[in-house]
Amino acid sequence: MLVVMQSGASAAQVETVRQRIEAMGLKAHVMPGAERTAIGVTGNTGPIDPTSIANLSGVKEVVRVTKPFKLVSREMRAESTVVEVAGARFGAAEFPVIAGPCAVESEAQALGIAHAVRAAGAQLFRGGAFKPRTSPYSFQGLGREGLAILKRVRAETGLGIVTEALDTETLEQVAEVADMVQIGARNMQNFSLLRRAGRCGKPVLLKRGMSATVEELLMSAEYLLAEGNRQVVLCERGVRTFADHSRNTLDLSAVVVVQELSHLPIVVDPSHGTGRRDQVGPLARAALAVGCNGLMIEVHHDPDRALSDGAQSLGLQGFEGVMAELRALASTLGRQLQPVPSFP
Amino acid sequence: MLVVMQSGASAAQVETVRQRIEAMGLKAHVMPGAERTAIGVTGNTGPIDPTSIANLSGVKEVVRVTKPFKLVSREMRAESTVVEVAGARFGAAEFPVIAGPCAVESEAQALGIAHAVRAAGAQLFRGGAFKPRTSPYSFQGLGREGLAILKRVRAETGLGIVTEALDTETLEQVAEVADMVQIGARNMQNFSLLRRAGRCGKPVLLKRGMSATVEELLMSAEYLLAEGNRQVVLCERGVRTFADHSRNTLDLSAVVVVQELSHLPIVVDPSHGTGRRDQVGPLARAALAVGCNGLMIEVHHDPDRALSDGAQSLGLQGFEGVMAELRALASTLGRQLQPVPSFP
Amino acid sequence: MLVVMQSGASAAQVETVRQRIEAMGLKAHVMPGAERTAIGVTGNTGPIDPTSIANLSGVKEVVRVTKPFKLVSREMRAESTVVEVAGARFGAAEFPVIAGPCAVESEAQALGIAHAVRAAGAQLFRGGAFKPRTSPYSFQGLGREGLAILKRVRAETGLGIVTEALDTETLEQVAEVADMVQIGARNMQNFSLLRRAGRCGKPVLLKRGMSATVEELLMSAEYLLAEGNRQVVLCERGVRTFADHSRNTLDLSAVVVVQELSHLPIVVDPSHGTGRRDQVGPLARAALAVGCNGLMIEVHHDPDRALSDGAQSLGLQGFEGVMAELRALASTLGRQLQPVPSFP
Amino acid sequence: MLVVMQSGASAAQVETVRQRIEAMGLKAHVMPGAERTAIGVTGNTGPIDPTSIANLSGVKEVVRVTKPFKLVSREMRAESTVVEVAGARFGAAEFPVIAGPCAVESEAQALGIAHAVRAAGAQLFRGGAFKPRTSPYSFQGLGREGLAILKRVRAETGLGIVTEALDTETLEQVAEVADMVQIGARNMQNFSLLRRAGRCGKPVLLKRGMSATVEELLMSAEYLLAEGNRQVVLCERGVRTFADHSRNTLDLSAVVVVQELSHLPIVVDPSHGTGRRDQVGPLARAALAVGCNGLMIEVHHDPDRALSDGAQSLGLQGFEGVMAELRALASTLGRQLQPVPSFP
Repeated sequence: MLVVMQSGASAAQVETVRQRIEAMGLKAHVMPGAERTAIGVTGNTGPIDPTSIANLSGVKEVVRVTKPFKLVSREMRAESTVVEVAGARFGAAEFPVIAGPCAVESEAQALGIAHAVRAAGAQLFRGGAFKPRTSPYSFQGLGREGLAILKRVRAETGLGIVTEALDTETLEQVAEVADMVQIGARNMQNFSLLRRAGRCGKPVLLKRGMSATVEELLMSAEYLLAEGNRQVVLCERGVRTFADHSRNTLDLSAVVVVQELSHLPIVVDPSHGTGRRDQVGPLARAALAVGCNGLMIEVHHDPDRALSDGAQSLGLQGFEGVMAELRALASTLGRQLQPVPSFP
Repeated sequence: MLVVMQSGASAAQVETVRQRIEAMGLKAHVMPGAERTAIGVTGNTGPIDPTSIANLSGVKEVVRVTKPFKLVSREMRAESTVVEVAGARFGAAEFPVIAGPCAVESEAQALGIAHAVRAAGAQLFRGGAFKPRTSPYSFQGLGREGLAILKRVRAETGLGIVTEALDTETLEQVAEVADMVQIGARNMQNFSLLRRAGRCGKPVLLKRGMSATVEELLMSAEYLLAEGNRQVVLCERGVRTFADHSRNTLDLSAVVVVQELSHLPIVVDPSHGTGRRDQVGPLARAALAVGCNGLMIEVHHDPDRALSDGAQSLGLQGFEGVMAELRALASTLGRQLQPVPSFP
Repeated sequence: MLVVMQSGASAAQVETVRQRIEAMGLKAHVMPGAERTAIGVTGNTGPIDPTSIANLSGVKEVVRVTKPFKLVSREMRAESTVVEVAGARFGAAEFPVIAGPCAVESEAQALGIAHAVRAAGAQLFRGGAFKPRTSPYSFQGLGREGLAILKRVRAETGLGIVTEALDTETLEQVAEVADMVQIGARNMQNFSLLRRAGRCGKPVLLKRGMSATVEELLMSAEYLLAEGNRQVVLCERGVRTFADHSRNTLDLSAVVVVQELSHLPIVVDPSHGTGRRDQVGPLARAALAVGCNGLMIEVHHDPDRALSDGAQSLGLQGFEGVMAELRALASTLGRQLQPVPSFP
Repeated sequence: MLVVMQSGASAAQVETVRQRIEAMGLKAHVMPGAERTAIGVTGNTGPIDPTSIANLSGVKEVVRVTKPFKLVSREMRAESTVVEVAGARFGAAEFPVIAGPCAVESEAQALGIAHAVRAAGAQLFRGGAFKPRTSPYSFQGLGREGLAILKRVRAETGLGIVTEALDTETLEQVAEVADMVQIGARNMQNFSLLRRAGRCGKPVLLKRGMSATVEELLMSAEYLLAEGNRQVVLCERGVRTFADHSRNTLDLSAVVVVQELSHLPIVVDPSHGTGRRDQVGPLARAALAVGCNGLMIEVHHDPDRALSDGAQSLGLQGFEGVMAELRALASTLGRQLQPVPSFP
């Protein structure tokens, strides 16, 4: 249920509504907007009689939200949410690019790539310290040491850090270092991790599961918002289909649908979305043209020797080329690749 | 097998090679190119000894083609094939747009839409006279009457006609009227129809089947080329997946892969690819940005009353808006939407 | 729309209803049943006023059929249709097995396999004279010569013949020889072929398309029944998914759903359904246990040298073993593998 | 790498090999079998020189395992692993059935259902105390209270308990009560949870992810075995496809493939595999016929009022009917539904 306040409603009126909702055993989420304040109501397992709230002063209307998601919905919040991460803005005219290697392999590797992607125009640095791997015998990431390296990357380059939290045990360590905590595709429905991430105090990048519907993706985001974290960016990264010419099938129409249904920004990861280096550039352009809110691209200084995901990583020159194409395209589309962050 | 001639090889040398191949009971497909002439060899069910050909004068090399497709492959022909249809050029810098209703419903409807899409910048008019319908009780198209209307559309607007051939019985009628014969997704592996379309004397638009791999699409095109028709344009129109927010999942990476593997042009149909009007514009932009060779878009003057596929058809104004966006984008990408054809 | 007659309705009453329907410009399909006669009404593009028919004498009720399929639906005909093919009965307690090679390769091959599958208990012989092949360069079947061989197989073994019709050109030739005409998966939505097969005078085996929904399969069967052919057996043969351990994913729940929605029998093809010899036996057992109306199994005397589909063909001994297992299982399930047909 | 000892190799010889392996910085997994002892070697990131081990006394051969999974593979252990859970035996001639509600809703509900499924022949009771739910607002299970109820179910009925562990925080609580810890489909690649479950001291039921390949399923099991837990039962529960007549598409050929590649038992869950009550019985029979090692079926005393998954739950009578069918079928297949456990 959603309570929409009149545009001139006072803070006291909002507060009265909030108290009435909570007195009914429900939870009220006050969401101030430029045009109006809305109050999301959750916790109702059965139908609620809306009249006792509809009659309060300052209330414009009470809306039954029939979609299963509430806090993430456009009905709840008509304006697009802008999520700021270390100066990068997702959800506005800006078009931030997150770039870096699949995994942090060493300080030299991470710093080298970070300086290069920064020079090419990336705003944020990605790199996994904890890696989810299909095989228990594959390289699992450098762990804490990797986090320490990421800290140094930010100190030296000024790039904000996006890195994945694999489990509730390491989430806090990750959140301490990360400017944005990534929840991976395999964990999209790890609800315990989502709840914790909803309380971690950092923006979250939530990747779509390999066979998740858009509704399921939004419901997983709902877990984050229900815990009070509204700094959520979604990520389309390809879904699993019969097609065998790419590792996954990048589903760009999901961007359009998410932006219709939800106020949250959504970025695209053409590296996982295709799994093949030569497809990354064209699909990055397509993702910008479809109107997404930013990109996440894997870049490695020596892709053929990367410890993971080399086949889909761009080399440094390849990334520069893609950024140049994106820059040209962005201005036509009324978007801007953001300026490189100034050194700290 | 592929015989590559030296760049200065004479017509007589090429002819000698051709004769030697045919003397072996095989079929030779001479493919002149700007840089070199290649001769495709088909019809071999077992391995062939290449030395008797490799030793002929003017032969540069004999290449074993390991991919199952031969005539459609880049190895066979390094340069991109340009297919011209009533002035529209697929496979070059131009970016032709095919537009029109799913089905021809009446002369007034077809002419009205044709004038409108022409004004908005479309180069070719699409409209089905014979419609493949899931239900035997649905509107099946106007048939011959529809073809007659299409003839008048061309006469009045100068727009070339793209229309579907459903079966071998009606293929000839269709080919007589059409500037480009469409083979629909459901018929992508109707091999008898493909063979006939390969001999119909008109360019063919071959749509990818709903769950066809890229290799299968290229093998179906191979049927057309094997019959001597090289004027083939492929079409990505979405594949069937679990995703339920769109009618199909548009697979834009297929464009990249087709262009790598084959010299044939490929266009994108965002109308069937998404099945929802509000997704057509964004995905049309994405298709242009990914680098495809043109678009096919469903347009109706009154989409909500269309006899078929109304949900995915743009209205006239909607189409104008999309064309304006594409025009701006194209120039950034070094492409041109073609000028409207002059009246006949 | 469906008109249900009273159980004691006379032939004259039925005829009056039929005439009234046709006078309305609609088509009446009289379907006599053991319990009641039903009259299917098709051809209505808009809503019809049912009262003028409901008031005729002998009419029990007029049912709006909301599902898009009509003639194939259980609502139209509550009893299961039994399709008889050369003594084999599909749709009853019997459990006929169709067996034979993917393609007829020679008379010796076909006769050898036919005698062997007959000895093992198969009721019908399958073998393709016209083969749909992904590549134009693959073996396309023996054509007319293959049909002649099939004729001899029946003469010598008494086995009824199931063989595929690829196109409208060859349908008549095929229907002349075949006891049951197969429409392959790739042609499930070749509506022109379906219409012709609906008038060919022989029972039809209609295979599910590679990514067809159950509703689409039933709608394609509707094309056959709408032309007057009620001798239709459906076939589940696996659908295309991301899974890579089998060629297709056999969808056995489709059997349950088809039997609920339709009165038509449905058989299972575990050879195409799995694409791997070692999976055929277990899935054949599963198909019997799920309650399907028969099986179609590929058998070859020398699978590793088969001209097509060798990887999924059982050898003669393998087939014998599977039949022995099926025989034991069938009796537990109240089903009977039919006796071998007596020699002619 | 896999070291196969001679059949008469002594314990001392085995120990020497083990020490040599560990001296190389690798991990040795000694796997005694009835016929031979094999020693799995893991932890090698690069190639190892096998000669130093092949020359030790008692070693028959050193096998390079090319498949990415090692400890779960048939090459590692030729005999099928039998997992015993509270008297139920998975992996042998027995055919145990796990039955119960999706979620524990109350003590009365759980006990009532448990007595009923026990009477019908189930060996183990399933019921979720912690439920993974797409929506944060759905019933999430009774938690600790649910576990206490499950404890009472076992005390009163003698049925072993199968219940899901959702996260590492609650795994220990769950493992304390459960006779078998379930890892759900959404957590199949929650590698932190898998590692913990590998050390929990209880047998594990690992469900296949919604779009996991068989290889990925086996790799996830490898995580469990790599931690020392060999009491692992896999579960096929349907995969996500385009098909819309069932909630998931049950992939029974996966059973055949898992049993070829791995020594681990695999059961089938036709309730999640189909999502519709009327399909559960037929698919349960099919799963038995395909040769799986047991079943997991959702049963509720009042399915239409179940707090979760009611649409796919059998009622008590429905379950009895299915069990009667399975019992008849099992004996034909040389399998036995196990006797009901004696009261404690």
